[in-house]
Amino acid sequence: MAVGYAGLPKLMVVPGVRIGVACAGIKKAEKRDLVLFELAQSSTAAAVFTRNAFCAAPVIVAREHLEERSPRYLLINTGNANAGTGRAGLDDAQACCEALAKRVECDAREILPFSTGVIGEPLPVAKITAAIPELVRSLSEDNWENAAYGIMTTDTVPKGTTRQIQIDGQNITLTGISKGSGMIRPDMGTMLSFVATDARLDAGLLKECLGRAVGTSFNRITVDGDTSTNDACVLVASGHSGVSIEKGTAGYQRFVEALNELLIELAQLIVRDGEGATKFISVEVNGGRDEGECSQVAYTIAHSPLVKTALFASDPNWGRILAAVGRAGLDSLDMEAVSIYLDEVCIVSNGGRDKLYSEERGQAVMQRDEITIRVELARGESHTTVWTCDFSYDYVKINAEYRT
Amino acid sequence: MAVGYAGLPKLMVVPGVRIGVACAGIKKAEKRDLVLFELAQSSTAAAVFTRNAFCAAPVIVAREHLEERSPRYLLINTGNANAGTGRAGLDDAQACCEALAKRVECDAREILPFSTGVIGEPLPVAKITAAIPELVRSLSEDNWENAAYGIMTTDTVPKGTTRQIQIDGQNITLTGISKGSGMIRPDMGTMLSFVATDARLDAGLLKECLGRAVGTSFNRITVDGDTSTNDACVLVASGHSGVSIEKGTAGYQRFVEALNELLIELAQLIVRDGEGATKFISVEVNGGRDEGECSQVAYTIAHSPLVKTALFASDPNWGRILAAVGRAGLDSLDMEAVSIYLDEVCIVSNGGRDKLYSEERGQAVMQRDEITIRVELARGESHTTVWTCDFSYDYVKINAEYRT
Repeated sequence: MAVGYAGLPKLMVVPGVRIGVACAGIKKAEKRDLVLFELAQSSTAAAVFTRNAFCAAPVIVAREHLEERSPRYLLINTGNANAGTGRAGLDDAQACCEALAKRVECDAREILPFSTGVIGEPLPVAKITAAIPELVRSLSEDNWENAAYGIMTTDTVPKGTTRQIQIDGQNITLTGISKGSGMIRPDMGTMLSFVATDARLDAGLLKECLGRAVGTSFNRITVDGDTSTNDACVLVASGHSGVSIEKGTAGYQRFVEALNELLIELAQLIVRDGEGATKFISVEVNGGRDEGECSQVAYTIAHSPLVKTALFASDPNWGRILAAVGRAGLDSLDMEAVSIYLDEVCIVSNGGRDKLYSEERGQAVMQRDEITIRVELARGESHTTVWTCDFSYDYVKINAEYRT
Repeated sequence: MAVGYAGLPKLMVVPGVRIGVACAGIKKAEKRDLVLFELAQSSTAAAVFTRNAFCAAPVIVAREHLEERSPRYLLINTGNANAGTGRAGLDDAQACCEALAKRVECDAREILPFSTGVIGEPLPVAKITAAIPELVRSLSEDNWENAAYGIMTTDTVPKGTTRQIQIDGQNITLTGISKGSGMIRPDMGTMLSFVATDARLDAGLLKECLGRAVGTSFNRITVDGDTSTNDACVLVASGHSGVSIEKGTAGYQRFVEALNELLIELAQLIVRDGEGATKFISVEVNGGRDEGECSQVAYTIAHSPLVKTALFASDPNWGRILAAVGRAGLDSLDMEAVSIYLDEVCIVSNGGRDKLYSEERGQAVMQRDEITIRVELARGESHTTVWTCDFSYDYVKINAEYRT
């Protein structure tokens, strides 16, 4: 069960965005595995994708389509990633778009395909196209919860959240869903996440807002350091509220804040449901010369199997955190100046164990489900925060048995 | 049990090098935990140490002593790393050197201290100094096997190997031992390793030989990506064979080859005994633009928890290897040109699953205890090989329970 997961909140509809969900039988019968977003004609959309060089076929196709047209449909399947499938994979992704285009009478380039699941197996195109009529029939504005279930793979819980803000006296809704729990270390993208608002933003501004929000949310989480081949995050603005967002206004400020918050919540939900996770860990690094070196230290800690197994065991084996800081590769790091905290407890100062530290105090923090590891580098003004989880038997179990 | 471990061979004595072993009761009673090397007056020595910025107190002291004097003694304890111990740790390391110096009547700067074990606990100086008389009494040339046991921590097997070569019609012996199974990703150093020869080399040449040999052995292994605070590798030349090694001669060539082989074997022994390891994996990357990018790809694969758990499960989930290559961060990598092999079986070509690949063929390779993952980047002439192991339940178990 995901750490600190409070259940799926009631996801508010976003006027102008309808969602269809179907069971295509891609991996299992009776499982929701096909999701369709239909965007009103007035919509703008922006997306960021994985930087993995071996990116999946649907990522390549979606990127191309997005460059040529403003999208009207997002077609998402789980159970098969259509990655590592070469040219045949590109044809398969295209074939799904064409089958849908024919059914809804649009141009295939107005459809963005997304896939998630096992890498390297051919996409079952026939199963997907056969389910398209059912998928289209099920289109409804009130289908976000269904969609949150429909994009799950190894996720143990559906992930979604929602916000309402007021701009110029009118309500603006932002609702989003995400999925992912393994192969999580997004790099300028994320596992699948779909966010929509009924505000009106031009495509350029939307892209800018998404890029920034992803930088402080999905690009700040890691479960296992493995950047997926299929990461994608899409932001849609239907414009149906009639409220236009213009850069530099107070409304813009409120919108950006709400969007950032929403994406951080969605990103954290992925970490809370990280494969085998029993703890939710924030790694905060302050006082760096630049953000780059803060990230270096934060990810070195967040990826250390030794730190992660100690967290799993609730063992205040802080030497492992100190060793991780030391090997992060920072130029001429003065270890005497560094201090390290577990929540409110200082564990390291002056190059060694803090004078006031005791095993009991460390133990008390480590028992918690949510812990902040804070590193003070004391050599600059930059800072960053990364979110991750611990490393348990279940991580090995889930990934050793994934395909069996 | 270590993968492909054939037992400790008979370790040949190295004339001019005597070894003492004692039980100081540092962590457990009756365990050999203190080792002393005594080097003949004629000896030269070279050492490389961890680049972890939070390096241990004995590393700092040993580095200083080595700069000032040619060492006569190496004093090694297990059970306590004397790392993360601040200034007190430096005093403790120094105190041990001084106690030994008094007993054997040398200058404390002629002693190099080494520690391995738990990080962050004060070194039990009194226990160590109390055991020094026993340690000195036990000095004997024929004590290598005892020493291999004496430096173990979480190691499940002792590690050592030996070579004899002929130069100018005379026998030269090289014998070495190593330890380590977790927190293994040496960076210009290694876990503890001690190698001796009875050849005569001047200190500069010895340092050069060691630096090169470490570059292709200890610096090419990883268990968990965690660079230790205490890594050190020492090479000693006693000169007692009477054979001098001069650069550029045929004898030099033979010596360097034997040394490289010996260090590779010692390094591989650490991986074979990697915490929880059930498989020994070679990751070979060819056709890179430079060695740096080959290493980048090799370590991305070797550190991927997803690849490592698939190896543990003997699951030919090659999509995870492909994803790791793709996220390694190579500039403008053409995924169509890359091919990937599991031993003799091609799994990926032309950006997707190789035409001749079948699950059965992949499965057949994955069942093996020793597997080579080979990546052909096809964009240059550089290559590298990295050795690692899989990631099992036992890795988590060992590291979750290490201090309890």
